[in-house]
Amino acid sequence: MGRWKPDARGRLEQAALELYGERGFEQATAKEIAERAGLTERTFFRHFADKREVLFPHANPLHESLVTALDTVPDAAAPIEAVAAALESACALFTERRELARQRQAVIAANTELQERELIKLASLASTLAEALRRRGVTDPAAILAAEVGIAAFKVAFGRWISEPGDQQDLSHLVRESLEELKAVIIGK
Amino acid sequence: MGRWKPDARGRLEQAALELYGERGFEQATAKEIAERAGLTERTFFRHFADKREVLFPHANPLHESLVTALDTVPDAAAPIEAVAAALESACALFTERRELARQRQAVIAANTELQERELIKLASLASTLAEALRRRGVTDPAAILAAEVGIAAFKVAFGRWISEPGDQQDLSHLVRESLEELKAVIIGK
Repeated sequence: MGRWKPDARGRLEQAALELYGERGFEQATAKEIAERAGLTERTFFRHFADKREVLFPHANPLHESLVTALDTVPDAAAPIEAVAAALESACALFTERRELARQRQAVIAANTELQERELIKLASLASTLAEALRRRGVTDPAAILAAEVGIAAFKVAFGRWISEPGDQQDLSHLVRESLEELKAVIIGK
Repeated sequence: MGRWKPDARGRLEQAALELYGERGFEQATAKEIAERAGLTERTFFRHFADKREVLFPHANPLHESLVTALDTVPDAAAPIEAVAAALESACALFTERRELARQRQAVIAANTELQERELIKLASLASTLAEALRRRGVTDPAAILAAEVGIAAFKVAFGRWISEPGDQQDLSHLVRESLEELKAVIIGK
């Protein structure tokens, strides 16, 4: 019986997040991650360039999902509505992944370098969104502002989603709620 | 006649920005910076831990200025109004520094690592602002959202300020304008 299984990447991710949480990101080794996943170290490096790539995949599916979703939003939608629709649609990526997201966030919160990497990832998401808005004909500063506030609202919603007990709240619902709160804040209430 | 002059730090900053612009951040050396400023390398290292600290001073005056300004805003002001007032007041720090700010931004734009450092600095400014809002009794998510959108508006205003020809536009005026644009965007116009 071969060791390779179709979900090798998923098992490696799961094992890595557990180990990073238990021993700290710095201490855990690729060898230990592979062992816990019942795979070889070589398999680990076939899926990930290094330990950090488990947390920050090279091809971030969120980028693609946002751009694809934005392309399906009607032209007449206001920039902020287009951003809201794209963000809500991207939430589907996180279905069934709340526990993983929670573990990932705890690992990142414990390490300054990873926190910085996460900030850079979020900024790059905002740039991707702004670029997609410009392709829709939205001019600056509206494009960059709509993208930045969209990502800010998403960040707040995501933090709430992974910190709430139970599974009652839908992420896309929380995103919409954050955008409403943002509106109240900016109007100065 | 001693070499030390009261504005040694300012002369080093000016010389460093010129050299980073001419030769690239990586290539310029502390020795060259000191020479151009008419000072010794030892003096450079008395003022800056390394070449990067010229661009990202350890004690960022913007942090202090924002917090101090926020403390003088009347309690009754809405969070976004308090943020706007703090940002406008912090603009005074940049008076007479537009050319330096422009040079600094060009150096940062040419180097990925410096761009990442700049993002981290902006995120840290947003955290400082949110924390100061919480001390005023503003709860989350309003505190973090008001801080994030304030920094987004400031970033847009700052970019416009340093890229515009001439000196017609006041930075604080542009900050107020960005916040108005933000309001229009978030309302969905």
